[in-house]
Amino acid sequence: MTSKNYHLVIVGYGGMGSYHAKHLLKGNQNIEVIGTYDKHEDRRTASMADGYKTYESLSAVLSDDAVDFVLIATPNDVHKEIAIAALNAGKHVICEKPVTIYSADLVEIMETAKINDRAFIVHQNRRWDEDFLTMKKIYDEQIIGDVFHIETRVQGANGIPGDWRHLKEYGGGMLLDWGVHLLDQLLFMIDSKITSVFANFSYILGEDVDDGFQVFITFENGITSLVEVGTTNFIQLPRWYTKGTKGTAVIHDWEINGKIVTQNSGEVEAPKPIKAGQGLTKTMAPPSEKAVSTSDLPKVVKTMESFYENVVSVVEGSAEPIVKNEEVLRVLRLMETIFKSAETNQVIQDFDLVPAKN
Amino acid sequence: MTSKNYHLVIVGYGGMGSYHAKHLLKGNQNIEVIGTYDKHEDRRTASMADGYKTYESLSAVLSDDAVDFVLIATPNDVHKEIAIAALNAGKHVICEKPVTIYSADLVEIMETAKINDRAFIVHQNRRWDEDFLTMKKIYDEQIIGDVFHIETRVQGANGIPGDWRHLKEYGGGMLLDWGVHLLDQLLFMIDSKITSVFANFSYILGEDVDDGFQVFITFENGITSLVEVGTTNFIQLPRWYTKGTKGTAVIHDWEINGKIVTQNSGEVEAPKPIKAGQGLTKTMAPPSEKAVSTSDLPKVVKTMESFYENVVSVVEGSAEPIVKNEEVLRVLRLMETIFKSAETNQVIQDFDLVPAKN
Repeated sequence: MTSKNYHLVIVGYGGMGSYHAKHLLKGNQNIEVIGTYDKHEDRRTASMADGYKTYESLSAVLSDDAVDFVLIATPNDVHKEIAIAALNAGKHVICEKPVTIYSADLVEIMETAKINDRAFIVHQNRRWDEDFLTMKKIYDEQIIGDVFHIETRVQGANGIPGDWRHLKEYGGGMLLDWGVHLLDQLLFMIDSKITSVFANFSYILGEDVDDGFQVFITFENGITSLVEVGTTNFIQLPRWYTKGTKGTAVIHDWEINGKIVTQNSGEVEAPKPIKAGQGLTKTMAPPSEKAVSTSDLPKVVKTMESFYENVVSVVEGSAEPIVKNEEVLRVLRLMETIFKSAETNQVIQDFDLVPAKN
Repeated sequence: MTSKNYHLVIVGYGGMGSYHAKHLLKGNQNIEVIGTYDKHEDRRTASMADGYKTYESLSAVLSDDAVDFVLIATPNDVHKEIAIAALNAGKHVICEKPVTIYSADLVEIMETAKINDRAFIVHQNRRWDEDFLTMKKIYDEQIIGDVFHIETRVQGANGIPGDWRHLKEYGGGMLLDWGVHLLDQLLFMIDSKITSVFANFSYILGEDVDDGFQVFITFENGITSLVEVGTTNFIQLPRWYTKGTKGTAVIHDWEINGKIVTQNSGEVEAPKPIKAGQGLTKTMAPPSEKAVSTSDLPKVVKTMESFYENVVSVVEGSAEPIVKNEEVLRVLRLMETIFKSAETNQVIQDFDLVPAKN
């Protein structure tokens, strides 16, 4: 049927499922999409129109010996049952995010993968986003000194998109949809335990699920972070705003517009007070001209394998997964802690400083 | 000595004291500055150079029957003793902010003012700031619908200014210095009880006092607010960022640069997904062209008496104070709650919903 090494079937041929087929796997040297399965008629039709064989049932996919990989791109609530069935059928599994709604379910999947000696890899695609990699480079290379505060935001004005993402039982809401990305990036960047979490959820749209949130996280190494998702924001604050001991970095958008402002070394003239409203301020005056330098954001060159290159390396035993299940599990546990903080309106201080129950 | 109705002496002729003389009271029709008192020699010299009589002691000021008003512009820790002595000597008192470090001290001053039937008015000058009045107009007139989230920030890169503001015992730190303004404005604008407070202080400069903070406040009417002061920010986020049910308003700076973006009524085309990093997003895509309108910030026309006009009206019995002591007291109590939240790393939920102990 194909000369490529691995055959993949997409389960759930909606927006993300078809994005894998048309973009992420397009031109891949090793993996061939050989079919799809979706329980919705319109998506089967779309799959056929796109030239893919459509399976009649999930069990038809799992009993097909030609299938090496199952990609799960369904609503969140059925990820677990499909993943476990696929792993038990001897398939490798790629799963869209958030992998499960509850961390205990991921633990069960991880155990099933281990028993069957199959790969289970979550598609945390935004670890490869250039805005994130740019900020990670600034952080890693101490371009603004030691980073001590990171604000990471995505803000839209369109509300929650119109499908299962509205519904709690399907794993809807913005924490699970976008929060999982921002938190995964943050924890991938900062190698330190979390000491406390405070969260406030927004329900301004009157939905069953959160339409956004602000989360304040403190790390054991002293870094603080404000993580925010909004769907009621008609003006956008910067995607990243990061403070270091020697300067500040801002990335405005996905086109990586932004800048770095750093303090010059040596003695500098004190700032002159400015008129600010009905008073004078020296504290909030701009630094004197020679006190700071503005520079461009650093260019990121490719630093790691692409997601699917890595998937192939993992199943061939030549690399560790870039997205490790233990990392994904920690993010899920953090999201559970964020839900708990928001529901109780309390700071939660026992995350990461006590061993996970699982 | 003068034909004006009221004579005022400035106690503490530093930055703020001389600012009152040179700016706020310059050209005032009713109040004449007739002298100053400062315990520092260099400031007496400055006062003489500026043409003001310098008193030898505080008691010399208080025993001078020609003095109607004492303006207190000393470090925060001695506001109370000077205020009480001046009120007991039959003087009206104007006091710089923060009026006292502890709310109980303000209560004592208020009682002393009442017993002596003298005016005691705190100079919360930033209620007259144009940026604040612009945002208050947007809020009051529901220009972006019902406001449900307000972010109010001042961010500098100069650290804490080099005097008593570094020292805890003098009432230093950014919460007391700038926080008092932002909180006073916020509570003056929002007529609702506070239901919870979460605060995180920054000590990145290694000072004895906070060099900045982020405070998250929730109000009984559903409004949430993020209040922030920073002195380690080489790039500034907007002064105000406010979300309403029909739009968002931003004010970037004290020059009132900014804009309003509101949702158009009627059916609008759904937004088109955009490529964002390694994925597509409809949620975070810009609204379709006809879905929103951008407009200028509204002009604020003078809506209330100036601070010193109001002071004269108050002592003549023709107006209520614009800055009411009960309001100032509530802000002090809120700052005490913020200190408590930051010190314990806890959400404080009993502020405003139980009667004040005083």
